[in-house]
Amino acid sequence: MASGVTVAVVGATGAAGQMTLKILEERKFPVRELRCFASERSVGKTVTFAGDGVRVQRVEAPAFKGVDVAICSAGSAQAREYAPMIARAGAIVVDKSNGWRMDPKVPLVVPEINPHAARAHQGIIASPNCTTIVTVMPLKPLHDAGRLRRVVATSYQAVSGAGVQGIEALREETLAWARGEAVTPKFFAHQIAFNLIPAIDKFGEDGYSGEELKLINETRKILEEPELKISPTTVRVPVFTCHSVAVNVELTEKITAARARDLFAAFPGLRVLDEPAGQQYPTPLTVEGQDDCVVGRVREDPSHPRALNFWVVGDQLRKGAATNAVQIAELVLRS
Amino acid sequence: MASGVTVAVVGATGAAGQMTLKILEERKFPVRELRCFASERSVGKTVTFAGDGVRVQRVEAPAFKGVDVAICSAGSAQAREYAPMIARAGAIVVDKSNGWRMDPKVPLVVPEINPHAARAHQGIIASPNCTTIVTVMPLKPLHDAGRLRRVVATSYQAVSGAGVQGIEALREETLAWARGEAVTPKFFAHQIAFNLIPAIDKFGEDGYSGEELKLINETRKILEEPELKISPTTVRVPVFTCHSVAVNVELTEKITAARARDLFAAFPGLRVLDEPAGQQYPTPLTVEGQDDCVVGRVREDPSHPRALNFWVVGDQLRKGAATNAVQIAELVLRS
Repeated sequence: MASGVTVAVVGATGAAGQMTLKILEERKFPVRELRCFASERSVGKTVTFAGDGVRVQRVEAPAFKGVDVAICSAGSAQAREYAPMIARAGAIVVDKSNGWRMDPKVPLVVPEINPHAARAHQGIIASPNCTTIVTVMPLKPLHDAGRLRRVVATSYQAVSGAGVQGIEALREETLAWARGEAVTPKFFAHQIAFNLIPAIDKFGEDGYSGEELKLINETRKILEEPELKISPTTVRVPVFTCHSVAVNVELTEKITAARARDLFAAFPGLRVLDEPAGQQYPTPLTVEGQDDCVVGRVREDPSHPRALNFWVVGDQLRKGAATNAVQIAELVLRS
Repeated sequence: MASGVTVAVVGATGAAGQMTLKILEERKFPVRELRCFASERSVGKTVTFAGDGVRVQRVEAPAFKGVDVAICSAGSAQAREYAPMIARAGAIVVDKSNGWRMDPKVPLVVPEINPHAARAHQGIIASPNCTTIVTVMPLKPLHDAGRLRRVVATSYQAVSGAGVQGIEALREETLAWARGEAVTPKFFAHQIAFNLIPAIDKFGEDGYSGEELKLINETRKILEEPELKISPTTVRVPVFTCHSVAVNVELTEKITAARARDLFAAFPGLRVLDEPAGQQYPTPLTVEGQDDCVVGRVREDPSHPRALNFWVVGDQLRKGAATNAVQIAELVLRS
């Protein structure tokens, strides 16, 4: 590690932070020095990176001196507080929280889609919400080829999107069921084992959830289409990892299903698995652990002359979170 | 049981047949005599109705002499064979299979929606597919009030829609997971525990599944709108009972969310549960065991001036199958 950069991982003990460390290793990110940070209760713990133990530090300005890039997986409130402080210390901050995404001075970046936006950063770059990333990846090549007019997106979201406690809730509820015991929901508002919860995040007066509004606003910002018409429904499902989205797109110019498959296959970070008669389509279990988002069930919409339906699945801990953030870090270090 | 009618239940030992017997009891259907039928391997078994054992008979014409109404829960191939024979013996046949639904001489009936169609029967009346029933129930009052222009329907379907083997598959896979064993899918094409399968029934060349085509064709027939534009996506989810559908409807005339809730609440067989900020919305577990379909997440679509989004959940073994069939029997006996 003689050459390379000094990297800070903030929130290093959480699910997203742990995945960030794993992705930095997998992608052979040029880490010269790694500094790990977390909230007060984790300070002093040790996390593992490339076989070495790294002691977790307290988040305070002097500790970021000399850091080139900081990848933050903290909550929105902490991110609002920490990111400017870390940026002032001289690091580029890649923030995964909801705290900065819609700030007009902060680029919101999916490297395959809008890398140019990242280059205009002022110290902080935001990585989008997991469901947004999985949905916007296949939207981009369709938009470039046939201009999107309207998108109806309906999600099937894994419990790990709600963090370690979401995973534990599904695990514990299912184990209680297996033991023949009563299931008591302790984390989600309702039982999630063998159930569906059509509500993610808080609700506004118009009846849309925070998760649904993120899908609208972030997709518009990433595609640089502030008026794009998007109709979202987001639902939590009893799946551990990978978000799936059933997408209906109306286009300005007709794109056949065959051409859409070609466009998806040619787009970096997307793969096509689409032979449903042979039981070949993406499922959460088959996509888990992959960085690519996988598209299947591509078909022309019989209800509209220029619309398509498709089904996209992405590992929301990887491309939906850690992989995208590390890709942003790679992008800004290269430029 | 001095007065009343003679009822035959065909397929009495299966999941749908058993639920039919339960619903006949619950609704105090005026059964004077009950005859139960099943396939060869179940002949001679005993099923229970109103506390009495009823011996299962072989399906053959003489056994249907004197039957007023026969409720059939057999497969499509058997239904194609048996239904005309039973009708010739003088019974009105209410068939739950896919064998007769699209036959132009056979009414396809949801009693709250098109009871008039039932009255024109020629001996056989079909009950729709479970997903169609759950979806079309809330479509009807919207169509009457504002005329549907286009429907995008995205389903979350329980394993019991695939019968007893579907239930067993989810149960056994989940128990294997709980024991820490490898999970081997034996019934569905892929593991269903903690997974999603975006494929129900066989596929046609246009990329749509049989289940999706049923949703298009049956909804058109029930609403008597042969050109209605419907864009379906059907997905199997790891839930035991109740199908859920996220529905986007474009209307000819604008209907506000508040008015839609009123229309749903006033429609027989529908209930509204829609206070998402207070965690009140239908889920499969809360709707299981109810005959009503329950609607929530009703909201105006920001992407279209005359569109609405909503979420409907129905117990597909009850309203989606047995309850609807028994209601059809009640309807034709009354008229």
